[in-house]
Amino acid sequence: MQIVIVGAAGMLGRKLVAALLKRGTLARADGTQARIERVALLDNVPFADMPADPRVTFTEGDVYDPTAIKKLIAPGTTSVFHFAAVVSAGAEADLELGYRVNLDGTRVVLDACRALGTCPRVVFTSSVAVYGGDMPDTIPDNFALTPQTSYGTQKAMGELLINDYTRRGLIDGRALRLPTIVVRPGKPNLAASTFASSIIREPLSGQDAVCPVGPATMMPLLSPRKAVEAFLRAHDLPPSAWGTNRALHLPSLDVSVQEMAEGLKRVAGAAAYQRIKWQPEPRIQKIVETWPGRLNSKRARAMGFESDASMEAIINAFIEDDLRANAR
Amino acid sequence: MQIVIVGAAGMLGRKLVAALLKRGTLARADGTQARIERVALLDNVPFADMPADPRVTFTEGDVYDPTAIKKLIAPGTTSVFHFAAVVSAGAEADLELGYRVNLDGTRVVLDACRALGTCPRVVFTSSVAVYGGDMPDTIPDNFALTPQTSYGTQKAMGELLINDYTRRGLIDGRALRLPTIVVRPGKPNLAASTFASSIIREPLSGQDAVCPVGPATMMPLLSPRKAVEAFLRAHDLPPSAWGTNRALHLPSLDVSVQEMAEGLKRVAGAAAYQRIKWQPEPRIQKIVETWPGRLNSKRARAMGFESDASMEAIINAFIEDDLRANAR
Repeated sequence: MQIVIVGAAGMLGRKLVAALLKRGTLARADGTQARIERVALLDNVPFADMPADPRVTFTEGDVYDPTAIKKLIAPGTTSVFHFAAVVSAGAEADLELGYRVNLDGTRVVLDACRALGTCPRVVFTSSVAVYGGDMPDTIPDNFALTPQTSYGTQKAMGELLINDYTRRGLIDGRALRLPTIVVRPGKPNLAASTFASSIIREPLSGQDAVCPVGPATMMPLLSPRKAVEAFLRAHDLPPSAWGTNRALHLPSLDVSVQEMAEGLKRVAGAAAYQRIKWQPEPRIQKIVETWPGRLNSKRARAMGFESDASMEAIINAFIEDDLRANAR
Repeated sequence: MQIVIVGAAGMLGRKLVAALLKRGTLARADGTQARIERVALLDNVPFADMPADPRVTFTEGDVYDPTAIKKLIAPGTTSVFHFAAVVSAGAEADLELGYRVNLDGTRVVLDACRALGTCPRVVFTSSVAVYGGDMPDTIPDNFALTPQTSYGTQKAMGELLINDYTRRGLIDGRALRLPTIVVRPGKPNLAASTFASSIIREPLSGQDAVCPVGPATMMPLLSPRKAVEAFLRAHDLPPSAWGTNRALHLPSLDVSVQEMAEGLKRVAGAAAYQRIKWQPEPRIQKIVETWPGRLNSKRARAMGFESDASMEAIINAFIEDDLRANAR
């Protein structure tokens, strides 16, 4: 298997690289597992902690640069994971940049896949930010995408492209709508949802964290661990498992921000809980409220995708995978 | 009011021009009717029967040419009707052309509107081809868009752009999903749905017409007369009437192809009915079956949009508006 990851230097990209190298195989088109021979990475920022593995190469470049992407998605490529994106607050702040990276970049990736002529498998990360506007309390499968951010709009357009190129036999695409990923290691990013990780991560390290939304705000959550499992499952499922729609939302743990804080208290104690400072920011509250609070993920569950079992499970996965791993 | 129509030389564009000139006014942003001073048209083919009216100008050019479109959507433009498109079978046959015209062209139009800095009103023609795949017998409002053609994909992407640019305050957009337009005057076009007009139009002129789909095939129909009424209504409705979704499907008359043929018999007699030759073409049947057969248009009806009353009403509108008008 010759694998390409576009936008590999992000948190999920790096975790996927580690998981691929550890697992060592991925499904071929015929369904059998085959050995991973090459993992070619691209991002527009350096790749931190690049694994010392002869299978891995890294290129610095832009997703919207057809020359760089065509060179990256070279003949022989069997699988492409497309993660590159300008996140929600970033795409909201800069209209051109958001469309260039999130829409044009996706077209460049898909056209490079198409040029191979071998129908490679493509896993695209979408987001539950594709939902918005007038929504029921719980979003069912087959609900209309009416995003209320440019980021959500561009992700919805990416899903449409994935479906169209797949239907035409140019790629074998799969698009996963990610719930809010919690707990992200590292530093806050430009995403409006970044607080959802900060309010767990910072107190666990003995630091204060600001929560800019009210405690009743509902968040559908997924741990990085379960997200990476989902990428591998999405890749390996046979085409027949997807039917006529190659996009779906992943199962999430749907909790209020208050329940997130209480999970932290149960895992790390009252002192950690007290480090969450509730300071409402209407700009963030407004963006977050355009996202769905609860997801009915019947279709994804039937396909074997899993949510985290509890808020404690999410926090403990972060402690095991990131805090302890880094401490070693 | 200074109006631009992109893709004006098509059948609906020409009927809209005539309706605008006859009506003489259109709603301003404040809701009051204001006099139409200029109607600037563009298409990539010559405009047949250009009305001799000092308010009208015509430019030949491509919708994906930013220079031409920026010149067309000049300062002072209050309203843009964006009709330019490569139709369904055309976009299916030529991937690049479909995306260039239907997606890139729409972006060029919206970016030219944005450059005005005055939030012009934009009416975009989408299509019920945005629906497809696993669908209920009747499509409700808020049903997911899972198009099974490139044309439907590109129209769904256009709707997303209309919503995003509107939400950002760059345009005041409205997108109408057109049912199959019947009866189209003139000649068959590249659309897979072209037979739906041919089987009425040709027999009324004493000619045979081939019906490439089975008599039980369901079609949601709308006459050109009601479509033009819908464009004017879509333009004139206040922003508050649209809520958080600027796209909707128009009310349709949902009939089987057999019922269409029987409507023809009632209006024009058994001889006309016999001129329909049933010759199944699997390629066309397959495309048409990816479209919805019935629409629940509760939202559009509540906003005052209307369907045709019967198949006879559709046929009689064609006889009055096209056959008799041309005979005069």
